[in-house]
Amino acid sequence: MMNMNASIGIDIGGTNTAIGIIDENGKVLAKSAIKTPKHGDAKKYVAELAEAIKDLVAEEAKELNILGIGIGAPNANYNLGTIEYPANLSFEGITPLVDLLKEQFPRFVHIALTNDANAATIGEMIYGGAKDMKNFIMYTLGTGVGGGIVVNGDLIYGHTGFAGENGHTMLIPEGRKCGCGQHGHLEAYCSAPGMARTTLEILAQENAIDSPLAQIPFSKLESKDIYNAAEQGDPIALKVFEKTGEYLGIGLADAAHIFSPEAIFLFGGPTAAGDYILNPTKASMDKHLITVLKDTVEIRVSELEQGDAAIIGASALVLQEIKKG
Amino acid sequence: MMNMNASIGIDIGGTNTAIGIIDENGKVLAKSAIKTPKHGDAKKYVAELAEAIKDLVAEEAKELNILGIGIGAPNANYNLGTIEYPANLSFEGITPLVDLLKEQFPRFVHIALTNDANAATIGEMIYGGAKDMKNFIMYTLGTGVGGGIVVNGDLIYGHTGFAGENGHTMLIPEGRKCGCGQHGHLEAYCSAPGMARTTLEILAQENAIDSPLAQIPFSKLESKDIYNAAEQGDPIALKVFEKTGEYLGIGLADAAHIFSPEAIFLFGGPTAAGDYILNPTKASMDKHLITVLKDTVEIRVSELEQGDAAIIGASALVLQEIKKG
Repeated sequence: MMNMNASIGIDIGGTNTAIGIIDENGKVLAKSAIKTPKHGDAKKYVAELAEAIKDLVAEEAKELNILGIGIGAPNANYNLGTIEYPANLSFEGITPLVDLLKEQFPRFVHIALTNDANAATIGEMIYGGAKDMKNFIMYTLGTGVGGGIVVNGDLIYGHTGFAGENGHTMLIPEGRKCGCGQHGHLEAYCSAPGMARTTLEILAQENAIDSPLAQIPFSKLESKDIYNAAEQGDPIALKVFEKTGEYLGIGLADAAHIFSPEAIFLFGGPTAAGDYILNPTKASMDKHLITVLKDTVEIRVSELEQGDAAIIGASALVLQEIKKG
Repeated sequence: MMNMNASIGIDIGGTNTAIGIIDENGKVLAKSAIKTPKHGDAKKYVAELAEAIKDLVAEEAKELNILGIGIGAPNANYNLGTIEYPANLSFEGITPLVDLLKEQFPRFVHIALTNDANAATIGEMIYGGAKDMKNFIMYTLGTGVGGGIVVNGDLIYGHTGFAGENGHTMLIPEGRKCGCGQHGHLEAYCSAPGMARTTLEILAQENAIDSPLAQIPFSKLESKDIYNAAEQGDPIALKVFEKTGEYLGIGLADAAHIFSPEAIFLFGGPTAAGDYILNPTKASMDKHLITVLKDTVEIRVSELEQGDAAIIGASALVLQEIKKG
C-alpha cells in the first residue's frame, strides 16, 4: 500500500507556535503546539520546534509520506526564507528560519516560509473556495488587515518578498493612526480594533449611552460584542457594520481597479457577522467600481476552517512549491 | 542578407490614428497617420487602416521582416482583442478590432491590442528603463492617469482584461469629481487637469491675483504654464508641484505596499517639470512607506521618447507576444 501524502504546516504566533500535519485535501490529521519563546535565541527555538515536529510525526504520521514544511509567520520574507525585524517575536534582526529548519530536516526539499495572510491565501487556492481561480485577492481581517494577491495562478511576492500589504493602503489621508505608525490606512478602519474605534466614534456622535456597546470599556470591546448588539437590534452596532462595510468596499473597489480579480475573499473574525458586514461591503464596492468593472468581482467569505486556517494555509505552501517545481 | 525584424505599432487616439514601423531596439523607422473617423463604422475604419499600413510597409519597409501588429487604444480589452464602449471613439458597443485586422492581415500570427498605458508599460520593459526588471509599475500622467503593472515579468490583465486602472484608486473619499464619474480618485488630483484644479484651489486659498497663473483662465491652464511659472519663481506654481507630488506620493506608496516593485516609472507631460514634481513625489512616497519597504522602491522617469511613445509601446506588444510564445 502506498503511503498517503501530507504536509506539515506551522503557524508562528507571538505566544504559541502551532504545528499540524495536513493531508492533500486540507484535512488536519494531527496537531500540537509549543510556546513561541521570549528568549530571542532562534537556534534554540528551531531545535525545540524540530523536536516537536519529529514527535508529532513519530506519534501520528508514521505511515505518511511527508512532502515538506510550510510556515506562516509575521514579517516573513518568502524570497529569502527569513523573518525580518518582527515586532511581536523575540528574535532580533533577520532570522534565516528556512535555512535553520533545513539543517534539522535535510531530507525535505520543500521548506518554505511566508506571512500568515499569504499562507491563508494559498490555502484558499489549494484547498478552499479559490480552487479554480487564477486571479483573486484575499483580505484577512483580524487584529490587523493583511492581504494576499494571486495573479495568473501565482501569489505576488514582489521585488522584496513583502508584497500584499493591502491593509496599509491609504483610506483617509491624515486619518486614524495605524498600527504601523502611519495614518489613515485601511487597517485602522477595517480590522477588529478598527471596528471598535468606529463604535466609539458613533457612540460619541450619537451620545448613545443606552446602547449595549456603551456599557463595555474600549479596552474590552471586541467585534463579537458588536455582532451580539446587532443581533439585539442595537442601531449603533448596525451603524458600525454599515460604516465598516462602506470603508472596506472602498478598499476592495481600489483593489478591483488595480487587479480586476475574479473574486475577493474575506477571512477572519469580523466575517462571522455574515450579512451585517457583507451587505454594506458589497454595496460600497459596487458603488465605487468604475463602469467597466461593475458586476465582474464577487465578494466571498473564505472557506477555510477558521480555527485551523493558519496551519492549513501554511501546509498549502508546500503543495504550491511542488506545483511551481 | 537576412532581413531586419520590425513591428508595426498603432496608436488609436480620439482624433488621429498613428502608425509606425519600429525596429527591435525601439527605433521608429517610418510613420504615418490617418484620421480616427467619426462615422462609427469599424469595418470601414479597419479597411482604411489596413490600407495605410500596407502603403507604409510598401514605401518604407520592403526589406524588413514584419513580426506583427501591436495596437494601443482606449477601453481596449487585451484578453478578447476588443475595444469596449469607448467614450472618446465613435465605435459603439464592442468592436472586435484584432479579429477585423486578422481578416486584413491573415499572414500575421501576432496581432494584439491593449490600452495605451499598458502599451507604454510594455514599451518601457522591452526598449526602455525597465529592461532588466521583473516587477515594476508605470503611471502615465496626462489627460487622465493610467497604469501598467508588471509582476514576474508579465503585464497584469486580470480576470476581465481591464486590470491596471491605478488612476481610479481612491485618494480622498468624497473628494474631487473624477472623469469616470466617481469621486476622489488619484486621476482627479495627479493628471494634467488635476494639476490645473489644484492651481485654482491654491490661487483661491492664497488670493494670489498677481501670480502669472492668475492671468490664465481655467479652461486654458496647462501643466506647461505651471512649469513656466515655477521657472519664474512663482510661489503658487511651486506649491502646486509640492501638493501634486504629495498626492502622487500617497498613491505610489499604496502601490508599493501592494506590489513591492523594484521601481515605479512616471510617464507623460507633467514629468517634463523634472525635479519640481519628482522631489515632492519622492519625499511623499518615502514619508508614506511602511518601514519594511523604505528605500526599496525607485521612482524613475520613463525613458521612452515621449512623442513616439504610443506607437513604440504598441509595437513592443508584438515582441512581448513572441516572448510569451
